[in-house]
Amino acid sequence: MRQVFQQSLSELQERLVGIAELVETSITEATQAFATSDAELAESVIERTEEVEALALELDELAINILLRESPVASDLRLVVSSLRMSSSLERMADLAQHIAQLARYRYPESAIPQGLRKIFSKMGAIDVEMASAVVTLLREQEPETVNVIRDLDDGLDKRHAKVFEKVLSDKLSANPLGVVDATLASRYHERFGDHAVSVAKQMQYFFSGELA
Amino acid sequence: MRQVFQQSLSELQERLVGIAELVETSITEATQAFATSDAELAESVIERTEEVEALALELDELAINILLRESPVASDLRLVVSSLRMSSSLERMADLAQHIAQLARYRYPESAIPQGLRKIFSKMGAIDVEMASAVVTLLREQEPETVNVIRDLDDGLDKRHAKVFEKVLSDKLSANPLGVVDATLASRYHERFGDHAVSVAKQMQYFFSGELA
Repeated sequence: MRQVFQQSLSELQERLVGIAELVETSITEATQAFATSDAELAESVIERTEEVEALALELDELAINILLRESPVASDLRLVVSSLRMSSSLERMADLAQHIAQLARYRYPESAIPQGLRKIFSKMGAIDVEMASAVVTLLREQEPETVNVIRDLDDGLDKRHAKVFEKVLSDKLSANPLGVVDATLASRYHERFGDHAVSVAKQMQYFFSGELA
Repeated sequence: MRQVFQQSLSELQERLVGIAELVETSITEATQAFATSDAELAESVIERTEEVEALALELDELAINILLRESPVASDLRLVVSSLRMSSSLERMADLAQHIAQLARYRYPESAIPQGLRKIFSKMGAIDVEMASAVVTLLREQEPETVNVIRDLDDGLDKRHAKVFEKVLSDKLSANPLGVVDATLASRYHERFGDHAVSVAKQMQYFFSGELA
């Protein structure tokens, strides 16, 4: 019985890692599609979103079944509780990658990135990809230090988010309302992606320490 | 023992209702502060956000304690699991109300709403307030029909969200990049507020039916 229980918990962890890996692929492709106006790549991100949603649902079912059958305690209970919440965050991260990909597709064959903002969006995309990769590592290796790596990356993202608005409001962009809308939304999507990575990190922090935050 | 358990579940429900009521107050005040450029009212919304956060944390602690001590099953387990997720949604709704209030405060004494968009934002705000009120009713009365009320309201919100972009891109707004940024963000905040109300509705749907979605 105990062995079956440990197997269920391992499966829960493996599934979390699996979903996080799909999120990493999605944000990598979305960032590239956005930078290079690649409509085909954007489509691949959009298609992956439903897969992530279905896997998150299966993960929730597994977590609830563990609660029902095994009545876990201590760190086992914390893993199950945090899984239920991380699945939502991972799903949202896939959604946000999709939103970035959709911006690229809507504007195709034009670029969704206004002139003068390419460099900063390329940096925001790179940070998001790094955060997604750190989330995979955190879920797989369960090393508490990775939590801080994710928080530090998020600080860099927030700085760029503020800078996008400065640029949008100061530049010759003013002449192009579509560019202003796209830049505002894209920057917000990147920033929220980072926030959800931090949510996952907080849930793992809770798993490690037992302290809710 | 059974009696203590039922008391804990009632307390969980009451606390959910309490948090939802604070969210309703916040979105009501945020909408008014945004419409009338009332910096003082905006401040009251911003201050309430921390209170909601603290209450959501306490709710999570209670839910986890119930899982640990009572090993609930069937609809009792579903209420506890859905509470853990609804607390996140309610917290995000308070955050989004705060973001709307912050837009009003940043632009004070100017209006954050560009000319020509006052009517549509007033409607979006009214729908958000109605959704928050329906969430309170859903959590208090636990009537399955309220789920559909919330979904229908969200459809109206999504239509207006699309319309804001049409207007932003077609109007004389083009001359004012700050107005374009504000309108884009405000519309997105209103739309996301509605999405989180739908998330709460979905969680209650799961509580009623046992079907995850």
